[in-house]
Amino acid sequence: MDFKNKNIIIDIEPISRRVILTSDKSMYDLLSDLSVPIRSICGGLGTCGKCRLLIQKGKEFFNLPTSAERKFLDQIDLENGWRLACQARIDKNKLQSLEKIETSQFRIFLPNELMLEDFNILTAGVGKGVKLLPAIKKYYLEVDTASLEEPQADFERIIKKLISTNKNFSRNIQFDISLDLLNDLPNILREKKHKITITLWNNKTIIACEPGNTVEDNYGIAFDIGTTTVVGYLINLNNGKVYALDSNLNSQTAYGEDVITRITFIKSDRKNLDVLNSIVIKDLNEILLKTCSKAKINPSRVYEASIVGNSVMHHIFLGLDPTNIGLSPFVPVIQKGLNVAAKDLKLNISKNGIVYTAPIISGFVGADTIGVILSSNIYKEKDLTLAIDIGTNGEIIIGNRKTLAVGSCAAGSALEGAHISDGMRAAAGAIDSLKIDPDNLDVSFSTIKNKKPIGICGSGLIDAVAEMLKSKILTRSGNFNKVLVNHERLIKSDKSFKFIIVNKDETSIGKDITITQNDIRQIQMAKAAFFSGTRLILHNMGSESLKIKKVFLAGAFGNYINSENAKFIGMIPDIPNENIFQIGNAAGIGAQYCLLNKDLRNKAEQLLNRIQYIEIAVKEEFQKEYAEAMYFPHLNLDYFPTLIEYKEIQKR
Amino acid sequence: MDFKNKNIIIDIEPISRRVILTSDKSMYDLLSDLSVPIRSICGGLGTCGKCRLLIQKGKEFFNLPTSAERKFLDQIDLENGWRLACQARIDKNKLQSLEKIETSQFRIFLPNELMLEDFNILTAGVGKGVKLLPAIKKYYLEVDTASLEEPQADFERIIKKLISTNKNFSRNIQFDISLDLLNDLPNILREKKHKITITLWNNKTIIACEPGNTVEDNYGIAFDIGTTTVVGYLINLNNGKVYALDSNLNSQTAYGEDVITRITFIKSDRKNLDVLNSIVIKDLNEILLKTCSKAKINPSRVYEASIVGNSVMHHIFLGLDPTNIGLSPFVPVIQKGLNVAAKDLKLNISKNGIVYTAPIISGFVGADTIGVILSSNIYKEKDLTLAIDIGTNGEIIIGNRKTLAVGSCAAGSALEGAHISDGMRAAAGAIDSLKIDPDNLDVSFSTIKNKKPIGICGSGLIDAVAEMLKSKILTRSGNFNKVLVNHERLIKSDKSFKFIIVNKDETSIGKDITITQNDIRQIQMAKAAFFSGTRLILHNMGSESLKIKKVFLAGAFGNYINSENAKFIGMIPDIPNENIFQIGNAAGIGAQYCLLNKDLRNKAEQLLNRIQYIEIAVKEEFQKEYAEAMYFPHLNLDYFPTLIEYKEIQKR
Repeated sequence: MDFKNKNIIIDIEPISRRVILTSDKSMYDLLSDLSVPIRSICGGLGTCGKCRLLIQKGKEFFNLPTSAERKFLDQIDLENGWRLACQARIDKNKLQSLEKIETSQFRIFLPNELMLEDFNILTAGVGKGVKLLPAIKKYYLEVDTASLEEPQADFERIIKKLISTNKNFSRNIQFDISLDLLNDLPNILREKKHKITITLWNNKTIIACEPGNTVEDNYGIAFDIGTTTVVGYLINLNNGKVYALDSNLNSQTAYGEDVITRITFIKSDRKNLDVLNSIVIKDLNEILLKTCSKAKINPSRVYEASIVGNSVMHHIFLGLDPTNIGLSPFVPVIQKGLNVAAKDLKLNISKNGIVYTAPIISGFVGADTIGVILSSNIYKEKDLTLAIDIGTNGEIIIGNRKTLAVGSCAAGSALEGAHISDGMRAAAGAIDSLKIDPDNLDVSFSTIKNKKPIGICGSGLIDAVAEMLKSKILTRSGNFNKVLVNHERLIKSDKSFKFIIVNKDETSIGKDITITQNDIRQIQMAKAAFFSGTRLILHNMGSESLKIKKVFLAGAFGNYINSENAKFIGMIPDIPNENIFQIGNAAGIGAQYCLLNKDLRNKAEQLLNRIQYIEIAVKEEFQKEYAEAMYFPHLNLDYFPTLIEYKEIQKR
Repeated sequence: MDFKNKNIIIDIEPISRRVILTSDKSMYDLLSDLSVPIRSICGGLGTCGKCRLLIQKGKEFFNLPTSAERKFLDQIDLENGWRLACQARIDKNKLQSLEKIETSQFRIFLPNELMLEDFNILTAGVGKGVKLLPAIKKYYLEVDTASLEEPQADFERIIKKLISTNKNFSRNIQFDISLDLLNDLPNILREKKHKITITLWNNKTIIACEPGNTVEDNYGIAFDIGTTTVVGYLINLNNGKVYALDSNLNSQTAYGEDVITRITFIKSDRKNLDVLNSIVIKDLNEILLKTCSKAKINPSRVYEASIVGNSVMHHIFLGLDPTNIGLSPFVPVIQKGLNVAAKDLKLNISKNGIVYTAPIISGFVGADTIGVILSSNIYKEKDLTLAIDIGTNGEIIIGNRKTLAVGSCAAGSALEGAHISDGMRAAAGAIDSLKIDPDNLDVSFSTIKNKKPIGICGSGLIDAVAEMLKSKILTRSGNFNKVLVNHERLIKSDKSFKFIIVNKDETSIGKDITITQNDIRQIQMAKAAFFSGTRLILHNMGSESLKIKKVFLAGAFGNYINSENAKFIGMIPDIPNENIFQIGNAAGIGAQYCLLNKDLRNKAEQLLNRIQYIEIAVKEEFQKEYAEAMYFPHLNLDYFPTLIEYKEIQKR
């Protein structure tokens, strides 16, 4: 059956692909046609049961579950929308009851285990370096045995040896130990004739005790829990090196792609907090296992985990209700950094290991931002510096060694490919940079892993918009230039235009990759949010005469951005390129730093008292600033004096 | 059937009664005849199922369970020896297979719920007074609501108000809170419009948060876990007053009357540690409920519990394996004081309440001794002072403000009535004091609660022995004086003698209450252990010229002792009576003090470093000292120069 006239749009999550369904093919065939490789053994015959996916929206318009599906999925799964990709297809008869098909009528979600190919989530970053001073330290001790003359308890004999062989401990320290570990102590102590290795946390608490000398095996794991992705770094705490890293798509995405949807889900039933909490813990435990297996390390030798994440991810991870973050005035339950027993959180590191969560700044500026501040050293800069962190939400930090202010803006996800017609995350086959020849509008481009293009990611989008401006395809207000309407790359559809980046013959998805008018609007809104947010924060810091001297670009796609083009579209201020730095996943590096240097945790608490939080969207000047910033690069060209190209570009 | 010639002896625990069974009567009738009132509705007809007891030894010689028992007890109970008192009786046919009936062939155990009458466990004591400085303090706060201008988190706004209204808190304190409580915080804060009361532990950790002003409801509970009895004191932490107290027989007694038996039980199967742990937690929770109900207090308003107990009770309470305490060199797992979350121990005080366990000194000198030291202030005395704590085990403390040494001796349980033919605990009907007329050997006596006598308790035994010495019924070596063999109160049975204290016509058990040669030996061993232990500790403190100037008598029967007689039998040194003080349940008072003054907990840790522990029984001079101390008052009369009566008493 031909669906073409029906205009059925299917959103594919968590890879943020939006496709038009043109026939009643199975979801398996749809994904294959899109070159999204998925796990299947039988090749779509319905006999292996591996290609499970979740129909999040519109499941009532799909065919009834087949006997193959009934074999692999139980009734509850089926009711919840789980299907086999090779069996599930939209039923045209069921569509007839619909008067109009909405754009967001259909959404399918591909669970982690379904996807074959690693998504190219940015895990690397550029830290400023940190002194090695972890909270975790191991000590090998040859403990004296007890005698009738010296019948001291096991614990006290261990402490006695620790103090006598390490001069930095005072006799007056009251060392702590958990009951669980205490209970194992007698056997561990005697297993290798009173030769043991103890693991001390913060010079005070014994959190592990192992027979023999295991001082070499000393690990921690740093996690960055993003709304969409979770990254983990397994680190040797004796030398500070990352031994393995791994990332997962945050499986909570199945319950909503942004934090507001997840808060709403929790508000509808408090039990859903447990659901989302278990999901993220499961993701973290999987990353823990994968990194440990890569580095051939026993997870019981991972003694501490440090966590950054936005405020909602932070709350859900800790099992705290984020409901009030979703209501004005958007208050979290707690801001300060916390140390929690790993077992209370069911995180499978060492049995008595500790989880440190970095502090959060406000309901919408989280521990990830603290991570960016700590790893970028913005709080030590001499010059006033702007750091923007682009993720599913956008955060803006402005400061130096004297002052520090932050704000958040509802921007960023477009730059991760969301809500863009051919947008996608920075994964294999994504166009990540491009150039347009202004003479003939020919497009040259590069893709991640040099694969045939299947979509366009954030850095490619910035390039596309900047190049379309330079080639006069777009006006400064973001409209298509009607002068060019007859060019073959410019296509009119419905009442708007789109620009063909790659012809369908060159793609592996059987259709053109284009930039639509709506895509341009999405990018305009994102860049306007960042720029107007920056101006409002500066304004609220007391003086409009403050000038940004440096820019740090952080986030999951920061490393791929052409900063010249980011400036050209007006996303960041007009400062020399040599003062624009791409610092990668600065939040994740911040998490690593907290693991490597415990003093940074005190620093984080001190910063928390110093940071000025500015609620951008409620400021009265916001609407005007935002509207003006929608222009490329801005309504007021005086803000971008070096962009001489704009002198030639028409205002409208 | 007449059992008389069989000499069947039944030990009844936990009341430490040993009786001779003279017919095949039911256990219900046996207990009734002994005036041990037990719970039963049907009066022994087997229809109410209330009179459950446990046959601990010799169950194979009892009749098979009757149909009445099968109705009320399941198969597992029956296999474990649980019976109905009214149905269970010894079967003479089964006895025929026995060549010889051992003294300890039969033991029955009466569970708490079976016994009607409160046992008169000593709960009171004489403390030296303590400054009120509890670890727990409550604060009523009217917290500011959040606004868009000040969108601080709930926790931070609470802390801000706490600091701004209480000048003694510095801005730099990092306050703690558990995740559980944090999760409840948003709702509690909003329940009474941001008016809350928080409970702070050690000025640092928020352990409770309640809507409105609940500052008045501020309680703690102090527990003294003895081998045989458990006592709890419910205390108002705002004024330091005991609002209610209650005691239970330690239900662990069903698994062995002394600590060694319980260690053996645990050694046989590690799971038994959980069994004994659950039992003592259940006892404590019962006492908690009973005291709270007496004082009309909600247990959720009890924020802290403090615990003293001997080392084995301490370990079992914490769920720590005491096995190594039972093996030379008798090492505990840990000595220092601990703070543990009440929920980890399943103690049903406030959800996030804290349990403090006082430190233990060695495998056989426990937290109860720390309690005695703290409450008696022996560590502040100018003069060298001896404190002896008489319980199921005996502890000896010698010291003053400069020096402190402790030891333990396997003595004391005889003074609680154990292993004494007509011995019993200090309960209603126990002879607690007596006098013998030296002319005609007539005995005058008093009983607890003035009931008809059913046995003799510790203080009565000391009196009996002292009076028998003064009346020349006994020689200094503890033998019966053969000169008196024809006196009507002196009876020869088997090859030894016994002295009739009360004729059977005057008792309520239908038989004479007597003191046997074996009873004298038990008392001799106990007093010799205390006296020789005292001498050995003094010796090991460095100088034999040290002289005891003061004596503190502590323990569950301390208040009833005639100290003149305790000196007369040679249990304590020969010092003037005005320097002998009875300080009651000093261990329990120590537990109360720890609850009332947190500085005493640091004091306890300091003392732990200062106290010299002396392992009495392994000292080479022990055997000789012990043998010499077996004499009344001692082989060497020079130690007791004021006891001029002995000049007339023959040495043998």
